[in-house]
Amino acid sequence: MYRRQFVNNYIKAFLGVSFFPVNNILSLINKNLFLQSSILINNQRINRNLDKLKSFGKNKDGGIDRLAFSDADRDARKYVIKLMEDAGLSVTIDTAANIIGRMDGKESKLKTIMIGSHIDSVIRGGNYDGQVGSLGAIEVVKTMNENNIQLRHPIEVVIFSNEEGGKTGSRAMANLVEDFELNIVTDSGHTIGKGLSLNGGDPNNLVDASRGSNSLAGYLELHIEQGEVLDRKQIDIGIVEGIVGIKRWNVLVEGKTNHAGTTPMKDRSDSLVAASSFIQNVYSTAKSIEGTQVATVGRIKASPGAPNVIPGETRLSLEIRDLEMDKIDMLFDAFQKKSEEISFSYNVDFQFDQFYVSEAAPTDQNFRSIIDRSAKDLGLKSYRMPSGAGHDAQSIAKLAPVGMIFIPSINGVSHSPKEFSTPMQIINGVNVLFRSLRSLDGLLD
Amino acid sequence: MYRRQFVNNYIKAFLGVSFFPVNNILSLINKNLFLQSSILINNQRINRNLDKLKSFGKNKDGGIDRLAFSDADRDARKYVIKLMEDAGLSVTIDTAANIIGRMDGKESKLKTIMIGSHIDSVIRGGNYDGQVGSLGAIEVVKTMNENNIQLRHPIEVVIFSNEEGGKTGSRAMANLVEDFELNIVTDSGHTIGKGLSLNGGDPNNLVDASRGSNSLAGYLELHIEQGEVLDRKQIDIGIVEGIVGIKRWNVLVEGKTNHAGTTPMKDRSDSLVAASSFIQNVYSTAKSIEGTQVATVGRIKASPGAPNVIPGETRLSLEIRDLEMDKIDMLFDAFQKKSEEISFSYNVDFQFDQFYVSEAAPTDQNFRSIIDRSAKDLGLKSYRMPSGAGHDAQSIAKLAPVGMIFIPSINGVSHSPKEFSTPMQIINGVNVLFRSLRSLDGLLD
Repeated sequence: MYRRQFVNNYIKAFLGVSFFPVNNILSLINKNLFLQSSILINNQRINRNLDKLKSFGKNKDGGIDRLAFSDADRDARKYVIKLMEDAGLSVTIDTAANIIGRMDGKESKLKTIMIGSHIDSVIRGGNYDGQVGSLGAIEVVKTMNENNIQLRHPIEVVIFSNEEGGKTGSRAMANLVEDFELNIVTDSGHTIGKGLSLNGGDPNNLVDASRGSNSLAGYLELHIEQGEVLDRKQIDIGIVEGIVGIKRWNVLVEGKTNHAGTTPMKDRSDSLVAASSFIQNVYSTAKSIEGTQVATVGRIKASPGAPNVIPGETRLSLEIRDLEMDKIDMLFDAFQKKSEEISFSYNVDFQFDQFYVSEAAPTDQNFRSIIDRSAKDLGLKSYRMPSGAGHDAQSIAKLAPVGMIFIPSINGVSHSPKEFSTPMQIINGVNVLFRSLRSLDGLLD
Repeated sequence: MYRRQFVNNYIKAFLGVSFFPVNNILSLINKNLFLQSSILINNQRINRNLDKLKSFGKNKDGGIDRLAFSDADRDARKYVIKLMEDAGLSVTIDTAANIIGRMDGKESKLKTIMIGSHIDSVIRGGNYDGQVGSLGAIEVVKTMNENNIQLRHPIEVVIFSNEEGGKTGSRAMANLVEDFELNIVTDSGHTIGKGLSLNGGDPNNLVDASRGSNSLAGYLELHIEQGEVLDRKQIDIGIVEGIVGIKRWNVLVEGKTNHAGTTPMKDRSDSLVAASSFIQNVYSTAKSIEGTQVATVGRIKASPGAPNVIPGETRLSLEIRDLEMDKIDMLFDAFQKKSEEISFSYNVDFQFDQFYVSEAAPTDQNFRSIIDRSAKDLGLKSYRMPSGAGHDAQSIAKLAPVGMIFIPSINGVSHSPKEFSTPMQIINGVNVLFRSLRSLDGLLD
């Protein structure tokens, strides 16, 4: 059933039939629509290549241990370089160990459009995170090559280095990597600096990897959602509104440690009871107000931590994410204000210590519209949503307009061997990437 | 001011003036009241002896490390034996290493009345827990000896062994110690069995320490409160209604571990948020219903425990204490019922696993009345209350009627070098112990 509907939708797309209104921006590129519709990516090759990629760092649970800078990472990079060359790309490695495959454009004065993702994983990671977008970008170029399509803009396919360990490659492009980071020992056992060298980079000249703020026309990334919004809603394509900003605090709740047998209920200053009230408020407030904000308490420690002692001290983490930093601050103010009430009710003190901030990176409005239109033209259901997780697009957003395309993660599972997206979902995503790239090529200067 | 009022009250007691109604039980012993009133314990000696006792196991914070079976424990026991002999007691050590000092009664057929406590401490303990009651009991006998008072009943002053490490001595008297306990390694580094031997006991014949259920007329123990009820209320004497029963459970809350960035608030199964709701309910229920019950969550662990991960599993401890086991069960049923609502609201599961139970030990009604009357006759303010902490009296309650007298712990601090009761509070307690013992001697068969 699903397959038949899919084919029907592709036929509609081929015939240029569309039931959706066309907005002003899209009218600019509509002239190319009919021609573009006739070409789709190869229905099997992308999934075959993803299957092959699984073998590099494969673990016993069917996932991968392909930590950036590990042997498995280097082997996988060699395989990917071969795929890129086979797709007709001219491959180089920059000083940040990013793999860059270039295809010239028809108009030599135009800036580069970049597509890509990463192929490194977390420990006990899965076979889709980063990998779908990486091989998807290569497949798009391969398809253009096979069909003798050359775009107006030069295209660069980029496989960013060490995404999971700190987005080193993409952040180096935006000149955001600080010297001390090169000395951080990663899960591979190597420092980032040493790892970049091992992977063909040059940590002593990292600045050479940075791009000027006027050098890129845009960046488009296909990625798995890593959440279960699309899977629950049975949506094919997520149009990412931006990568959320994150702030994290350590919260200290101080009451009074006391004997749990000899201290009447009304005489207690129980820090854990007060912390519980705080956690309830964080959850219910973040859930009840409109928007896609999330707030989480993931870590808690009550001291001294014995069943027969009233905990005098509770420490917990607070994390708030939203597309708008102002909303994060507004939420935090509300939580902090509530903590004053709780302090009064339970005779405790609250202290907040912010220890992490990651700025929100909104995607470009035009990119969103183009992805939306591309999905619709392919008969796919799409949905606008934030990305709760961080991505390389977040770094490149400092330099150029960016867009992101999500495909469903089955059951929302990610960073796990159980991470999965169906072959059809992957093909849908790569087709939307392909179609959006060509539309952008028509739209962008 | 306080001292003058105290003296006035003592004069009132001496003159037999009392503004309080005399109930039926007390009328039996009223005949002895006037005579008894004229004798009080020595105003300085008890505190001098307590000062000397501090030196055994003294630590740098002014408290003691006098773990049962340690060298410090043995040294202190030698000192206490000397005090007992000096008070005219005939001292033996039973197979459970309890120190027993006996004074014969006038009527040889009467059963023994026991008084006493313990002198071992927790790690980094204080100078009052157990020690006030131990030296207080010796002081009572010393005072009788000095005043040529012999009671009708034989009196035994008992210094129980290893109270802090499992009430070994008092539980052996009630034949409650199980064989496996002798192999438990205590904080002293010795097993309980080895420790009993080192302290003059005989673990292979522990049963010889047990008393028949018809061998004791009663047991009376003076102890510091170890809570701050008396200190807050400015009460001199606590009349213990019983040692509370305790039940403890391990509680497991299972939700779903998920990415804190990509999982919308409404799609979460956050075990920590559910656990927080549970903790709130435990606290507010135990606080709001009438009675002296207490309920505590002292330990909590949320897993995996990272700021950016929704905790899929939270484990916590639940402890409920009350004088009535039925009330503990009633409260637990209410908590468990509420957990079903919480499960439904937050899409989690709760599991409860009881891992500890200690039966409640009510004190004897007549003992309470006698302590009450003794305090009033001495012009002291008294208050009926449960003991939230465990005591040797709890073991002896299996054999005979028991009573307990509490004196205030300043700020409720106990099991700490900061544990403190004033010299006057100690003298008040010992006088109430003395007066109550003499009243019991008149009352009991």
